[in-house]
Amino acid sequence: MAKKKNAFYAQSGGVTAVINASACGVIETARKHSDVIGKVYAGRNGIIGALTEDLIDTSKESDEAIAALRSTPSGAFGSCRFKLKSLEANKREYERLIEVFKAHNIGYFFYNGGGDSADTCYKVSQLSEKMGYPVQAIHVPKTVDNDLPITDCCPGFGSVAKYIAVSTLEASYDVRSMAKTSTKIFVVEVMGRHAGWIAAAGGLVADQGIPVVILFPEIEFDQKKFLAKVDENVKKHGYCTVVVSEGCHYPDGKFLAEQGTRDAFGHAQLGGAAPVVANMIKDALGHKFHWAVADYLQRAARHIASKTDVKQAYELGKAAVELAVKGRNSVMPTIVRLSDEPYKYKIGHAELKDVANVEKFMPRDFISKDGYGITDKCRKYLTGLIQGEDYPKYANGLPVYVTLKNVAVAKKLPEFKL
Amino acid sequence: MAKKKNAFYAQSGGVTAVINASACGVIETARKHSDVIGKVYAGRNGIIGALTEDLIDTSKESDEAIAALRSTPSGAFGSCRFKLKSLEANKREYERLIEVFKAHNIGYFFYNGGGDSADTCYKVSQLSEKMGYPVQAIHVPKTVDNDLPITDCCPGFGSVAKYIAVSTLEASYDVRSMAKTSTKIFVVEVMGRHAGWIAAAGGLVADQGIPVVILFPEIEFDQKKFLAKVDENVKKHGYCTVVVSEGCHYPDGKFLAEQGTRDAFGHAQLGGAAPVVANMIKDALGHKFHWAVADYLQRAARHIASKTDVKQAYELGKAAVELAVKGRNSVMPTIVRLSDEPYKYKIGHAELKDVANVEKFMPRDFISKDGYGITDKCRKYLTGLIQGEDYPKYANGLPVYVTLKNVAVAKKLPEFKL
Repeated sequence: MAKKKNAFYAQSGGVTAVINASACGVIETARKHSDVIGKVYAGRNGIIGALTEDLIDTSKESDEAIAALRSTPSGAFGSCRFKLKSLEANKREYERLIEVFKAHNIGYFFYNGGGDSADTCYKVSQLSEKMGYPVQAIHVPKTVDNDLPITDCCPGFGSVAKYIAVSTLEASYDVRSMAKTSTKIFVVEVMGRHAGWIAAAGGLVADQGIPVVILFPEIEFDQKKFLAKVDENVKKHGYCTVVVSEGCHYPDGKFLAEQGTRDAFGHAQLGGAAPVVANMIKDALGHKFHWAVADYLQRAARHIASKTDVKQAYELGKAAVELAVKGRNSVMPTIVRLSDEPYKYKIGHAELKDVANVEKFMPRDFISKDGYGITDKCRKYLTGLIQGEDYPKYANGLPVYVTLKNVAVAKKLPEFKL
Repeated sequence: MAKKKNAFYAQSGGVTAVINASACGVIETARKHSDVIGKVYAGRNGIIGALTEDLIDTSKESDEAIAALRSTPSGAFGSCRFKLKSLEANKREYERLIEVFKAHNIGYFFYNGGGDSADTCYKVSQLSEKMGYPVQAIHVPKTVDNDLPITDCCPGFGSVAKYIAVSTLEASYDVRSMAKTSTKIFVVEVMGRHAGWIAAAGGLVADQGIPVVILFPEIEFDQKKFLAKVDENVKKHGYCTVVVSEGCHYPDGKFLAEQGTRDAFGHAQLGGAAPVVANMIKDALGHKFHWAVADYLQRAARHIASKTDVKQAYELGKAAVELAVKGRNSVMPTIVRLSDEPYKYKIGHAELKDVANVEKFMPRDFISKDGYGITDKCRKYLTGLIQGEDYPKYANGLPVYVTLKNVAVAKKLPEFKL
């Protein structure tokens, strides 16, 4: 009993359609290991909840409520964009984390996020050793950007990919219907600041005969070549669909549409590449256009989540707890692909030192030679990740998503100024 | 046998997630009445197909392919934006229609569209009488704008309403998760040039505690009042969702974002109200924002179609043929609401003279007093229309939508210049 420790779980960065499925996996599995894991405390609004000692007692939630997390999009405990950088620059924050963990007898740190969070998780593990209060830090991967290394994919991505592929297919059918006398160009803007994984998903519709041009962040934008490609498609098919990544940029690094604002991580806030591209086509080729910006709709779209993605998100949450129970530290459970068709995988794990601050880009051989489409290799990769549907329950025409009680744990420490 | 006539069916204007379900209803029902209805010819690209004698022989399509129309979005035969105005100004076109109908022994004209098409349909009926080749003209209602009179609703609308309600709910959960340190404002732009029906659907999420502000085209935009409302929501809830109709405008009639282009009907091409509103909030209140423009994604979203809408679309196509078989002319089948909770309806019909060129706006008592939300009356109206899900089949992660063969009928007449 002396060794029984509580666990801390936090959601970090942009939320997804399935990050709560990972939370569900963590909490349900922790409840099964009540011999070694006491309560699971969640950080209210992510790591900020740990720093400010604003912990949520998940033991106050019923089994039904926790189970409902599996089909609820967004971050049930709140997330945040708050980066803990180097130990030197943020020593005070790292030490505070350990203090809070110590005060609440927390021995397990489950951090559910992307690359920045993997780095924080790694540092917490290192520092806790140094401070003589060892915490097992396990990173649970999550990012719609799919840019974490080692793992076959990141939970959240498969569902966005499915949403973008389905939406691109549907909108392409629409523009095809209208092209004779009206709209000939449909442009949809998708997320993906540095990696074109999400944009690539739009390329899956090419198999169904849809003329689609993809603008990847990995490929420098060449206006003349792009317009020639669109023109060729309109001449051949009567219409053209364009999927533009928000991260698409000119050779000098300037994004097609920067909004001029930056987030807490110092990243430029993007948006508006679609109208830029649409107007460019109108000016050069004269075609009537429509454009859409999917933004949060894509990453929140639990209603059309990939069954494979939901399953993987849950399994990685579960695996994180199982790794902790086995005494592992400073690791991240991963998806290991075994085969493409049919898609088969197993759960593995990676050392956080190999994960932190490594960004996985689209391999060049996933992008077609001309830079505007995906290769067969990419199609095989993506197809596995969008397999199956996992519909939420509906009541009165709308999905039934859970909102937790999120009861606060009594504070034990002095206030901490962020 | 002498009285057996062929039928002509055409899709008009912007397509929807369920217009093909109406086509399915028309064709399947016509096939059951082969004693009086010969072949169903579809206009390739709408009414243009009739004018240019570019007819599609739907009898070349298998029963399976026609059945698959029920779950395929967009216009399977192509649609067009091509308005036939007054008989005086467009006499040549109207006469050509009758000539083509005569040449192909067409005695039934099923026109699947919105207000403009109802008007054309009405005029064809009138002129065919005068020209001594009577054609039974039946209008099948369709418009995501939901602005046709008499009928309780228009097929296509219920599915857009469901898509917008679901998407607004999901994105609101997302922004709620992020609001502590990041995005506090989410703006989604929806269709609806003159009527705020689609925007109203976003208001359904208010029942779930989401702070949502709706900008209707029916309510003149008041920047100061709007910003105060958003500010109030952010102070109370920490975040705010805004649903802005593309038709939202200032008291002088200027849209929040005109793109400066006009379509074939002379309507201004809209788009971009969302970034305008988002930046307005950022400038005045300083909140970080995200914005989405749903555009075609909303009206093509067959993957989340309302079961009620799909059913009604099919039933109205079926009813159109049954009205024709009963000898009716110049009519439109309608939805007659019988009760709200549970939503019950029956199929009725209206005279085209009462439908043509009448636009149905949101009743003022569907919009809350402050102009930014929906009333209980509106909620009851909308809730009926989004009941049930009608998922398409999926293969390999993507919906299975049908593309017809669309075999052309041999031409019999001289060419006609549009």
